[in-house]
Amino acid sequence: MRALRLKAWKSDPVLEEVPVPSPGPGEVLVQVGAAGACHSDLHLMREFDEGLLPWAPPFTLGHENAGWVHTLGEGVTGLEPGQPVAVVGAWGCGTCSRCLDGLETYCERPDLAPVPGGGGGLGLDGGMAEYLLVPGARHLVPLPEGLDPVQAAPLTDAGLTPYHAVRRSAAKLVPGSTAVVIGAGGLGHLGVQVLRATTAARVVVVDPRDAARDLAVASGADHAFAPGPDTVQAIRELTGGVGADVVLDFVGSDDTLALAAASMRQVGDLTIVGIAGGTLPVSFFGLPYEVSVQTTYWGNRRELVEVLDLGARGLLRAETTLFTLDDAAEAYRQLEHGTIRGRAVVVPNDSYRA
Amino acid sequence: MRALRLKAWKSDPVLEEVPVPSPGPGEVLVQVGAAGACHSDLHLMREFDEGLLPWAPPFTLGHENAGWVHTLGEGVTGLEPGQPVAVVGAWGCGTCSRCLDGLETYCERPDLAPVPGGGGGLGLDGGMAEYLLVPGARHLVPLPEGLDPVQAAPLTDAGLTPYHAVRRSAAKLVPGSTAVVIGAGGLGHLGVQVLRATTAARVVVVDPRDAARDLAVASGADHAFAPGPDTVQAIRELTGGVGADVVLDFVGSDDTLALAAASMRQVGDLTIVGIAGGTLPVSFFGLPYEVSVQTTYWGNRRELVEVLDLGARGLLRAETTLFTLDDAAEAYRQLEHGTIRGRAVVVPNDSYRA
Amino acid sequence: MRALRLKAWKSDPVLEEVPVPSPGPGEVLVQVGAAGACHSDLHLMREFDEGLLPWAPPFTLGHENAGWVHTLGEGVTGLEPGQPVAVVGAWGCGTCSRCLDGLETYCERPDLAPVPGGGGGLGLDGGMAEYLLVPGARHLVPLPEGLDPVQAAPLTDAGLTPYHAVRRSAAKLVPGSTAVVIGAGGLGHLGVQVLRATTAARVVVVDPRDAARDLAVASGADHAFAPGPDTVQAIRELTGGVGADVVLDFVGSDDTLALAAASMRQVGDLTIVGIAGGTLPVSFFGLPYEVSVQTTYWGNRRELVEVLDLGARGLLRAETTLFTLDDAAEAYRQLEHGTIRGRAVVVPNDSYRA
Amino acid sequence: MRALRLKAWKSDPVLEEVPVPSPGPGEVLVQVGAAGACHSDLHLMREFDEGLLPWAPPFTLGHENAGWVHTLGEGVTGLEPGQPVAVVGAWGCGTCSRCLDGLETYCERPDLAPVPGGGGGLGLDGGMAEYLLVPGARHLVPLPEGLDPVQAAPLTDAGLTPYHAVRRSAAKLVPGSTAVVIGAGGLGHLGVQVLRATTAARVVVVDPRDAARDLAVASGADHAFAPGPDTVQAIRELTGGVGADVVLDFVGSDDTLALAAASMRQVGDLTIVGIAGGTLPVSFFGLPYEVSVQTTYWGNRRELVEVLDLGARGLLRAETTLFTLDDAAEAYRQLEHGTIRGRAVVVPNDSYRA
Repeated sequence: MRALRLKAWKSDPVLEEVPVPSPGPGEVLVQVGAAGACHSDLHLMREFDEGLLPWAPPFTLGHENAGWVHTLGEGVTGLEPGQPVAVVGAWGCGTCSRCLDGLETYCERPDLAPVPGGGGGLGLDGGMAEYLLVPGARHLVPLPEGLDPVQAAPLTDAGLTPYHAVRRSAAKLVPGSTAVVIGAGGLGHLGVQVLRATTAARVVVVDPRDAARDLAVASGADHAFAPGPDTVQAIRELTGGVGADVVLDFVGSDDTLALAAASMRQVGDLTIVGIAGGTLPVSFFGLPYEVSVQTTYWGNRRELVEVLDLGARGLLRAETTLFTLDDAAEAYRQLEHGTIRGRAVVVPNDSYRA
Repeated sequence: MRALRLKAWKSDPVLEEVPVPSPGPGEVLVQVGAAGACHSDLHLMREFDEGLLPWAPPFTLGHENAGWVHTLGEGVTGLEPGQPVAVVGAWGCGTCSRCLDGLETYCERPDLAPVPGGGGGLGLDGGMAEYLLVPGARHLVPLPEGLDPVQAAPLTDAGLTPYHAVRRSAAKLVPGSTAVVIGAGGLGHLGVQVLRATTAARVVVVDPRDAARDLAVASGADHAFAPGPDTVQAIRELTGGVGADVVLDFVGSDDTLALAAASMRQVGDLTIVGIAGGTLPVSFFGLPYEVSVQTTYWGNRRELVEVLDLGARGLLRAETTLFTLDDAAEAYRQLEHGTIRGRAVVVPNDSYRA
Repeated sequence: MRALRLKAWKSDPVLEEVPVPSPGPGEVLVQVGAAGACHSDLHLMREFDEGLLPWAPPFTLGHENAGWVHTLGEGVTGLEPGQPVAVVGAWGCGTCSRCLDGLETYCERPDLAPVPGGGGGLGLDGGMAEYLLVPGARHLVPLPEGLDPVQAAPLTDAGLTPYHAVRRSAAKLVPGSTAVVIGAGGLGHLGVQVLRATTAARVVVVDPRDAARDLAVASGADHAFAPGPDTVQAIRELTGGVGADVVLDFVGSDDTLALAAASMRQVGDLTIVGIAGGTLPVSFFGLPYEVSVQTTYWGNRRELVEVLDLGARGLLRAETTLFTLDDAAEAYRQLEHGTIRGRAVVVPNDSYRA
Repeated sequence: MRALRLKAWKSDPVLEEVPVPSPGPGEVLVQVGAAGACHSDLHLMREFDEGLLPWAPPFTLGHENAGWVHTLGEGVTGLEPGQPVAVVGAWGCGTCSRCLDGLETYCERPDLAPVPGGGGGLGLDGGMAEYLLVPGARHLVPLPEGLDPVQAAPLTDAGLTPYHAVRRSAAKLVPGSTAVVIGAGGLGHLGVQVLRATTAARVVVVDPRDAARDLAVASGADHAFAPGPDTVQAIRELTGGVGADVVLDFVGSDDTLALAAASMRQVGDLTIVGIAGGTLPVSFFGLPYEVSVQTTYWGNRRELVEVLDLGARGLLRAETTLFTLDDAAEAYRQLEHGTIRGRAVVVPNDSYRA
């Protein structure tokens, strides 16, 4: 089968022919329906190098995957060939307490995982291929009726990550509260939809791009601002002077973190989603009292079930631009140049059900 | 001024002339903009008698009130004459720990309250008059922009009660969960709107009345059933066999409680809102494991702030039928005969701002 | 090997010779160090009959087990022969969402479990034998240092069940709150210890037996009453008139449930642990506002890890009376006659480490 | 009466004669039983200057107060002269939503408070005098039986602040978790007691002072380390490699914050209590995933009720060194030189009940 593979650090991925994997005991072979192309893949191609991560090329890209069950390994029950499924992306050891609670993003024995802190498309072969070998049936979530793999794939990361981030602040997002979303790109516009679907918070988006702000408003934002010298003041005015209860920073640069900090209300949540490499200096009097500053990382299986339900009911819908597997490298090029609308999704097989 | 007063137990209320009250220290006189007529008032007129409640007639009816600040008693700050306000209905002692936490529905020194376990329209003079004396500025919530007293008044009880009930189950109302609302009348249809605005739960309504089911669907219900021998089965089918995560019973009869119990999922919440007098026998194996059976009672000030925000943003809107103060007795007659559409609201003053 | 087996409904168990089981893929053979004898086993011998449960005799008794890993089935990782372990007793399907979240007591596909709603000693062969076959490595929790199988075994049910029950009320058990424990037997005295170790609530015990009250006080109860006409009044006096925040009824008869209900504070938790078959009629005005009435059922893996930590640190310690496997039937006889002190524990192997 | 007053920024306080205040409507005059001397008072004497705070000298020091109700202002109910009380120290506006919820530390209309963001001893006259004027009866909490003002006074800040800090992490402090307390001084040793009384977490203390470590162990710490190059490694070893679930930094310097950050487990809470002026740079990969970094500020009335209950039951007991009002300046000198054992408490009246 064909697969888009990263062969070495600091290189472009290559489409090549590889054998179709065969599932061992407990494993499942999935026919890939769709695989999202993620910004973090660009970091893998451009910035990382030997020794920085606990795993290394070569591997097939694609950590945002959905498709159909193709072949069940020995001992797998509860799934049937042909069944449409989404793939939970974080593959932990499966045996530590966190994993046994379904929280594989928090796996505490990464040394026992297939690769430490990674998964398909992140050290192991991912979904930019005709077939994907999934090392445990627990990583598969059956798609609810009304959701196909093309819609589901981006929800497994670009939908799940903001969902997880919003959930951490659920108790603060009461009616009358204000959530600020910084950056309304692939993840941010889905964050707006999650806020709209699951809370009655007022949603304010900050993004310099006209198209992103339009997408944010179409996704349900109440206000959308281009960042500028008056942004903090505008947020304070919208909130009766007190500031935002929750700020989700999908960028994560020094500048956006400073904007986030300046926008906060006492006892609010400042959540860092984006990995643009910024730093926020936290000190006792540098932020309003009791603001919780926290990163957020992906999400777990239970949350993906919830996200897919939102998707199936039309409450969460990723904007997508589709590519064939032959054009997958092109998807990354466009992603790098910022010309993709919504999420780039690679559809590896000629038709949805060959 | 004119006031609709209950003069004795087991009697119809009477419209009569009474003096305009004068606010003492810490009190506020409110010009009434609107006062909702509630089913529980019919219980006061028909069912109660001497000694059953810790307070007694005569008093002016109306415990669901909004209007404008008219005169401030000595020492009141933070409010201005003319300011539109809603009235928090439960008036506790104000000095016990629960009250000082803003939880006056849970007041633990009712003997120190203006009347034990009551408030305006419930033992003390209520809002079915031109003016209402409110015994503490803390009972007033300024109306947010976009919400007038006629819309606000029913939200203070018919909106607040279901809001409080839904909030108790917030953690269980994740996407993919199912909430069943039994009874889509004055409170129930607002319960549907609260669920829709603040959660992504699937909402199923059960009501024998066609018009109520229509209103429920217009309010955002996903499904509306007339109760019948197949109702439980239908709920089980909609939930993949597992049952409802949350059932809010706005009726509270033996029959509806039995329906609620039979519809539950393990670890779900069965919340009794309605006071139709039913009893649910609870035993270890009589319900799925760990279903929480609980009554719910009104709501607190903080929650009313949140409810009014939903109202101002158009996310919570009571259907209302308006009456003048002269016709207030008629409002109760129609309420008793079940011919009111939505909530009956009495508008005591000729215009909104005389 | 020898095993104490229930051969038919309504019969006494029989000690007989059976083959040592051999673990298949994913399974683990455990050398039993200790198996607790539980009151619910008496229900199995005396009260149940064909068709009442989804499983049936013959099977080996003992659902409260700890021991040492003996043989690993194919594909099991993360465990080593000789390692001391406790056994999580509820064996769900392992593939539904609840199970994948580590909540096997809430399994929603019991039809896919080894036996529906059961486990070892409950439809499948349990721990009253020299060896126990555990159908999944996930059901084993390594013992923390300082805890041996004899101490650990009773914690897997008699410790875990009250722990789970207390945890549901954690937010209400603040300093100054009062928890009432009805019944200070095998589970109840451990419930007192859990309350003492994990909260600063005042603990009041109600039990008619002198020895049980003594054990309760030794376990950390602040007060211990024999039930009587003044019990509710005594509880109200201890709580400044407001009632108990939490009542854990380890008996569950009509009488104890009525006592529980009469002792409650508004917004409290009434938790039914015991299965004496009682019923509590719940109605709107029959209980203080917003009391949550709920059963509680066993506990999950994560909670068992926490319980074992309490055990290892000496904060949770079951009183035990030990029996050999030859005397196991006698243990049940004494249990039936109420002459056991603390928990009866069967030690099937001659020494702890043969 | 005599009062220890700060007359100007950057000066030592002076004992002088001032008139006994007279309580206006709603106010209460308290005869001071005890007033704690707090490190933050030293900041007031040494570091602040005109314009840095929204209030200024002159005022009487002492923000940690308890005593007896002396005279009730007009309209005050629910208190009686002679009744022992503790004083809630943060005096908000009393009319914003946060204050009406009992959360005056989060007051959002500080411009309407007696002084913005302050209270008695912080801009207004405090408790280092024979009498203290308290501007609202809601700021007084009756002392539970068994607790006198000398024990109660330090609990209102040195007890309440760590209690509030621990409560924010209650859900993470399950059995088996580890809490690290950095700095076991006046607040820290009470933090250890709060952890011991309300959770079953393992408690590890880090403090360079031998006496502080001894006090920590006497207060219930499981381990106490002097900080050094191996401290992080020691914490990791104690936690099976995963790190601390919660770190409470009662110092708050660059060094202690760095130690805290290096000790964290994924998804843990790093809480900054101390105001030593340090800064922690927070970035996406600079801390384990989803560590919440947050300051904590004092506590609220409800929490003080809980803290006083712990005190009355002997579960929370401040070490104190007593001073007369004549020696109050000396108390601060010793505090400044680090020679006080436990909390310095000034007892302004000759006997407890003159």
